[in-house]
Formats: sequence, structure tokens, C-alpha cells
Amino acid sequence: MSASSQNLFPVVNCLAIRGVGLIGGSVALAARKQGVARKIIGIGTHAGRLQRAVDLGVIDEFTTDPEEGASQADVIVVATPVDCIAHDVIRMHRTLPETGWMTDAGSVKEQIVRQIGQELGEGHRFIGAHPLAGSEKTGFENARPDLYVGAMVVLTPDPETESRFTQSAQHFWQALGAKVVSMSASEHDQILARTSHLPHLVSAAMAAQIRPSDFPFASTGFGDTTRIAAGDPDLWTAIFRLNREATLASGQQFLQSVQDFLDAVKQDDQATLKELLKNSKQLRDGWSESRNGSIGSVGE
Amino acid sequence: MSASSQNLFPVVNCLAIRGVGLIGGSVALAARKQGVARKIIGIGTHAGRLQRAVDLGVIDEFTTDPEEGASQADVIVVATPVDCIAHDVIRMHRTLPETGWMTDAGSVKEQIVRQIGQELGEGHRFIGAHPLAGSEKTGFENARPDLYVGAMVVLTPDPETESRFTQSAQHFWQALGAKVVSMSASEHDQILARTSHLPHLVSAAMAAQIRPSDFPFASTGFGDTTRIAAGDPDLWTAIFRLNREATLASGQQFLQSVQDFLDAVKQDDQATLKELLKNSKQLRDGWSESRNGSIGSVGE
Repeated sequence: MSASSQNLFPVVNCLAIRGVGLIGGSVALAARKQGVARKIIGIGTHAGRLQRAVDLGVIDEFTTDPEEGASQADVIVVATPVDCIAHDVIRMHRTLPETGWMTDAGSVKEQIVRQIGQELGEGHRFIGAHPLAGSEKTGFENARPDLYVGAMVVLTPDPETESRFTQSAQHFWQALGAKVVSMSASEHDQILARTSHLPHLVSAAMAAQIRPSDFPFASTGFGDTTRIAAGDPDLWTAIFRLNREATLASGQQFLQSVQDFLDAVKQDDQATLKELLKNSKQLRDGWSESRNGSIGSVGE
Repeated sequence: MSASSQNLFPVVNCLAIRGVGLIGGSVALAARKQGVARKIIGIGTHAGRLQRAVDLGVIDEFTTDPEEGASQADVIVVATPVDCIAHDVIRMHRTLPETGWMTDAGSVKEQIVRQIGQELGEGHRFIGAHPLAGSEKTGFENARPDLYVGAMVVLTPDPETESRFTQSAQHFWQALGAKVVSMSASEHDQILARTSHLPHLVSAAMAAQIRPSDFPFASTGFGDTTRIAAGDPDLWTAIFRLNREATLASGQQFLQSVQDFLDAVKQDDQATLKELLKNSKQLRDGWSESRNGSIGSVGE
């Protein structure tokens, strides 16, 4: 799939955003900036919050009735928490016009895509997506029109997805400035377990080692290693649940790796210890260089 | 021990810095700025590098003969790698004038202090110190006169250290802008294992999980968690060797903590998983707040 950012997406009448938070709000702002849709409606549960999003110019209109909102939409982006996405997609798919299609922004894919595929069957119009972009901030007040510019978006179409909608989803995310790649939901989840979900678990386990009396003696090394442990426990509980197998598999690999380091320390095996540290440094440096290189930067 | 930064340190004739790198160079620049010594000499191995430090105004003079350098000094700061410190201290203590004293800047303390105490015996004039300040950069070219301003310095006097020299060391580091606390070398090493040495090992083990093909899918979460894995393998091999017991003990605790997380994921025990994540978040948030609070910021 090409990573060209040429705008091949035809303007649609109505883009609906289910879940107008940082992610959904940024999709709305980017879509507005790029002229992707004539009208952007927000679908949510709190009328007061949605009205504020209208007042701030993030969305044009809102509804608290998902079926009603879906019935107007050409495209729906579902940006609710990962454990709500499948339910939201299935519910809104019923009233979505026949030419309309849906995508999402969840950081776990296989369970969501499988559940939707099983429920909606062949010819459904949902294409799983994961934009690798975000922020520690939350809420549409922190949404940015450039959040997806240069960011990687992984599409995970399943065999039941109609290919024309997959192409539409590719052009849609590209129109927002993203680099789009396509892979199986299972492959996505295994990669993200290593690059995102396990790091979160490790960061949390590391933060758990400190005692309040240690605080004055912990500096930026500790701070960086545990930064993501400050994330939302509800959000992460849902992510680990939905990416259970891949998280467990990469967790076992990680435990073995820590044990290898500790064994080398215990046996005072300096050669092995240095080799392990060098290998890690090489991978970390390689990743760092890849961000500055031709592949472009991947926003979080 | 008071953390007052009032300058109680009397100006000395000669401050010697053994190991003129980022740490030693920053001590030299801070001492010069605060007028702590009339002359600052660098003691090292590479005359060319030392001459350059003179040219840049980091030090006034240099020698490549440690005994000769020590014989001129009122105060010596040993800022060599942790596995060289004890050797350097013992060697230079021989020619240090009777009124002179020494301190160091090593991030491990118990083995160093014990070896020096055993070798030099009662009434020796070395006071272990660990300034919790540094940078990813190396070399005196990156030294900064304010590196220790607001930074925590832990002093680890042993029972053999003459108390008047401990007080001098306190006033010396305070004169450079640091907050000084005092504790046993063993306590220091246990705390630092949790706040610095284990985070490094964990960061390295985490970096080892990524594959080059994953690079485009790893963003700032991975980047932060593994940042310190880019550190110098030689330096860290030495630190782990010298803080072996405390690193192993905190490593076992950490393995158990990761296992607790993975068990909760495996058993789909959401309540436990959320509780674990909340506890980690609370500790991380607490640490973050402590840095902004009355305790002041702790440099790396």
C-alpha cells in the first residue's frame, strides 16, 4: 500500500465522529482543515460536552443517538475506548447508509475485527485502523489538526471487508496527513505488544518498585522509564484484556531477558553482561536513527 | 545534615580533579564560578585532552602523575569510572598533604568505601559522595558550572572517616549549589538500585524485545521506556558489578511484580490488574509531584 500523501479522497457530505475526545477531536479538526467533509457531526453521550465541542468549532453538530447519527453519515470514525469499539461499530452499522463505511482508532485490533466480522458477516463496511498518534492529554480541548501529519496508521482489513472500502479508508487517513500501511490484525497486535503494550506493563512494574522515601533519589532515568505508567488504568486494563495473548507472549520473552541480565550480574559474567547491554544499545540506537531517517517520524 | 546552601566552605589553595570529564569538568567549572579554590588542577592520563581542558578554561593546570598532583592538593575530587575510584583514591591518599581530604562522584558506594576503609584504615581522609546529576553527554566540553545547582549529593562517610572532613565535604558540595544528605553506603546502594540501576537494566531488557522491522511502529512510549538503554555498556557493566547484591535483590522484586501483572492479564482478573496499574500510577504521580514540591528538583 502506498504511503503517498496525495489527496485521493473525494469530499463527502457527512463525517461522523463517535467519541469526541483527543483522538476523535483531532480527526475532526484534521478533516475540517483538509476539506474532507462538508459537515462533521459528533456522536456521544454527554450533550453538554458535545455542545462545547460545537462551540469550539471542533464539530458542526452533534447527536446523542448513535443510530440517528450513523444514518446521516458517509464515513464514521469510531474513537471510543477499545472495549467499546466493537459494540459501537455493530450498533451503528445497522443504520449506516449502504454507501457508507466505518473505521476506528483502537490500539488493539484482532479481537475487535474478529467480533465485528463474526457479527456483521461478509460484505461489511468496517475497516480496522490504528493511528500511532496520541498524547498524554485527553479531551477535544487538546485536539490538534496536525496530530496525524506524518503519523503511521495501520489498517487491518479482514477477508470480509469489501476492498473498495479499504481503499477509501486508506485515502481518508492519507488525507489527514498519515502514512498508511496494511497488515493482519494479528500481526498488528503482536508488533504493538512489543512496541507499546509490554512497555506500558514494564513501566508500571518498574514504578511499583519505588518507595516514597526514595523519591528524592530518583531522577530523569527513573522518570523516563516510568513515564507511561502515569497512563489511565481503565484504558490500559482494557488494552491488556483485548491483547491478552500477544502481551503474555512478549511478557514471557521479557522476563527471560531480565533473567539473562540478572544471571550475568549474579555470575559476575562481565563479557555476557556487556554483550547484552551492547545489543540493547544497538537496537535502541537503531530505532532512534530510524526516526530521523527516511522512514519519517512516527508521532505517538 | 542541613541542606542550607549558605557558603560555609573556606577558599582553598588547590582543588584537584582526578578524571576531567563531564562530571569532573562540571565540578571544576562550578568551583571556579563559586571561588572555591585559588587554583584548579586536572589529573588525567591524556596530556592532549588535559591541555584542551586548560585551553577551554575548565582547569588551570594539569598533570598526568596522580601522586604529584595529589601532593599539591587541599581537596581532590575523584571523578573516574566507578571501577577505578577505589584504586585512584588509595594511590593518591599516600601523597595527599595531611590537611587535605578527598571525595568522589561514583554512583555506587559500598564496595568503594569498604575497600578504601580496609586499605587506608582509621583516620583516613576520604568521604564517599554521589552527586545525582549528569547528562547523556560526555566529556569536559559538555561540562556546566550549574550541573550541581539544586542537585542532590549523597555523602556516605564510614566510621573511619574523620568527622571534620565529612563536614568539609558537606560544605564543599553545598558551595557548588547541591543539597547534601548523608547516609550509609549500603543504604545508598539499595536506594540507587531501585531508582537508577534496576531502571537501567529494565530499560535494556525492554529495548532487547524490539525487532528492526518493528521500528516504524514504536513511538515515544517505547522511546522513553528505553532511553537509558542507550547508555555506555562499559560504564554500566561496572556499575552492576559494584552494586551486585542490591541490583539482584531489586531485580527479583521486579520480576515478581511483572509476574503479578502477567498473572492478572492471564486470569483476566480485571480488578487486580486495575489495582496494580493504579498503585503504579499513584507512585509515579507522587514522584512527579515531589519534584515540583518543597523538596526541589533533583537533577539527573
